[in-house]
Amino acid sequence: MDAKLIQWQKLLDFSKRAMMKTGVSEPDAKKVADNLVLSNLRGIDSHGVARLRRYFDGIKTGYILPTVKPRIVKDSTVLANVDAGNGLGQVAGTLGMELAIEKTKKEGIGFVTVCNSNHYGFAGYYSLKALGHNFIGISMTNAAPLVVPTFGKNAIIGTNPIAVAAPTKRNKPWVMDFATSVVPRGKLEVYNRLGKKLPDGWATDENGFVTNDAGRVLENLKNLFGGGILPLGGAGETYGGHKGYGLMVMVDLFSGILSGSNYGPHIVSKKEGKVTFPRVGHTFMAMDPEYFIGIDAFKDRMDSYIDELKNSEKAEGEARIYVHGEKEFEKQEEREKNGIPLDAKTVESLMGISEETGEKIEFMN
Amino acid sequence: MDAKLIQWQKLLDFSKRAMMKTGVSEPDAKKVADNLVLSNLRGIDSHGVARLRRYFDGIKTGYILPTVKPRIVKDSTVLANVDAGNGLGQVAGTLGMELAIEKTKKEGIGFVTVCNSNHYGFAGYYSLKALGHNFIGISMTNAAPLVVPTFGKNAIIGTNPIAVAAPTKRNKPWVMDFATSVVPRGKLEVYNRLGKKLPDGWATDENGFVTNDAGRVLENLKNLFGGGILPLGGAGETYGGHKGYGLMVMVDLFSGILSGSNYGPHIVSKKEGKVTFPRVGHTFMAMDPEYFIGIDAFKDRMDSYIDELKNSEKAEGEARIYVHGEKEFEKQEEREKNGIPLDAKTVESLMGISEETGEKIEFMN
Repeated sequence: MDAKLIQWQKLLDFSKRAMMKTGVSEPDAKKVADNLVLSNLRGIDSHGVARLRRYFDGIKTGYILPTVKPRIVKDSTVLANVDAGNGLGQVAGTLGMELAIEKTKKEGIGFVTVCNSNHYGFAGYYSLKALGHNFIGISMTNAAPLVVPTFGKNAIIGTNPIAVAAPTKRNKPWVMDFATSVVPRGKLEVYNRLGKKLPDGWATDENGFVTNDAGRVLENLKNLFGGGILPLGGAGETYGGHKGYGLMVMVDLFSGILSGSNYGPHIVSKKEGKVTFPRVGHTFMAMDPEYFIGIDAFKDRMDSYIDELKNSEKAEGEARIYVHGEKEFEKQEEREKNGIPLDAKTVESLMGISEETGEKIEFMN
Repeated sequence: MDAKLIQWQKLLDFSKRAMMKTGVSEPDAKKVADNLVLSNLRGIDSHGVARLRRYFDGIKTGYILPTVKPRIVKDSTVLANVDAGNGLGQVAGTLGMELAIEKTKKEGIGFVTVCNSNHYGFAGYYSLKALGHNFIGISMTNAAPLVVPTFGKNAIIGTNPIAVAAPTKRNKPWVMDFATSVVPRGKLEVYNRLGKKLPDGWATDENGFVTNDAGRVLENLKNLFGGGILPLGGAGETYGGHKGYGLMVMVDLFSGILSGSNYGPHIVSKKEGKVTFPRVGHTFMAMDPEYFIGIDAFKDRMDSYIDELKNSEKAEGEARIYVHGEKEFEKQEEREKNGIPLDAKTVESLMGISEETGEKIEFMN
């Protein structure tokens, strides 16, 4: 199978129709498709339609319930907890962020956790939703264990991402969105496919030693042999690995512990050979700058800071200082115009889904 | 001058009395002394009484106003903004955290920013205050520019720390508290004093190249020659340096931009040869787990997670996996019993203050 190019609208439509064939309602299927395709548009292909197969498998295997409706189980003026009922992460996640935004409209802040959920796609998707309301948006989630704690041997924490978005006027919004591990698993998969050696400090082997062998790490993770990805800051404490490890636990503290969901080593879809609900947890927050310096001043000040960062002198040999979200917005403009490139493996996976569901997929080449 | 040992109560009393000699009221002086000495007790000597001299100088030079009272300038059910009036950071910071706690008692959450402030000591001090109320506490602050953005040449962002504290039952509370740079400046000073080479990826020289020369970096920072400390994740993007850089800007976004305070390169106490208010900004947040899973279940779940992290298999050659705050609580117990060791330079600085103020300081040796 070859790599292909596809129009984003076509990809969105196919993803939605395919999801619907698993029993998911049209509005819910649209949420999932919207999240995956926006990830591809923004260049985060690891969290794009390549994930569709996993959602299909999750529904087929039984740990993702396709028709369940998320339920608000705790609710106050500015706080809420949502039970996803082991449904699709994007469905409960969208409700969670919308709730945080509604509360922010009334009181300037909203903080919502989601329990008993599944993979919710890319974290930035939810914080981006706050921008249309001139709010700051925050989104975090825990995830299946892939990361070793500092001085630990086994992967018992997720790559638990943090995303923060803030509105601007002249510049593109400031959107930070990253895994709290040094790299996400997708990066190891790329190195493995290319047969490239991992840089020191990305991952450890089954004994806890730093390794350059991507295939070995991925194999170990799959078989729970030990070892895994390192926290942001790398191995040990010299480069602040304990800081990345701390951020990871912090994300778990809100998303898993506080919400009443699973956390750390417990987020698995299979235990002792039996299918089990991973019970992923998410956190959403929105804030209205109007309650502080005022939205107009806030945006102006964001723009000034962004300008100062970008216009600051570059290190020798460097041409550009980026601000967060800038690369992704550029990619989005380019891909909206020219189409989304899909690698051969993703094309193969989508063709398989097309065959299973009978839903046609149309590429540009 | 030799290194000395001192009882924490004596150090607290001396610090308070000395601060009062600069015109600071007794309750305010107590806040500063309490913050500095707790930092020493917890082993964070870089933020302990070694800072007293800088506060003295700030008051003498005029950028810290010793008698001004912080003022609440914006106030809603769960949000507030405090104007520190260019007074002591610990005074406005304590008010900010207390406000966040008061709001949390009523609505389960409180979010407070502080503008026009000064150095507020160690960030964890404020988040620790939430624990006595069975709340989660968060504290962040921006700071004088010492860090270069990814691909940048000049230090235009602070080491902007993040601190999060969460209550537990059986275990010590979980307390994460760190600079978002790979290391704080204090670490470079230690390497410089010992004549040790910096590890690669801690700092850059005046051209933006990674350097191992601590003295050169410190000298460059002092003279604004370019270069500085690297963000958590190190140089470039290979190890996630852009993530640390993002966290730094995030802390500034809340503490500086949202609060209406200074941010990034503007936090300086001297500009074009003239004394100027640095206008540091802080962020405080508290949350009541009772609104989510309930405080009892929250603490039990924190304890379980901490146990699982600590009992997890160790990497080859490692004896222990730490959880955040553990080292500091152990240090505190030890130093409360045996006294606080002060290095020769700190002893000299305190002796100088003792002479200037006429306040006696009594060591154990």
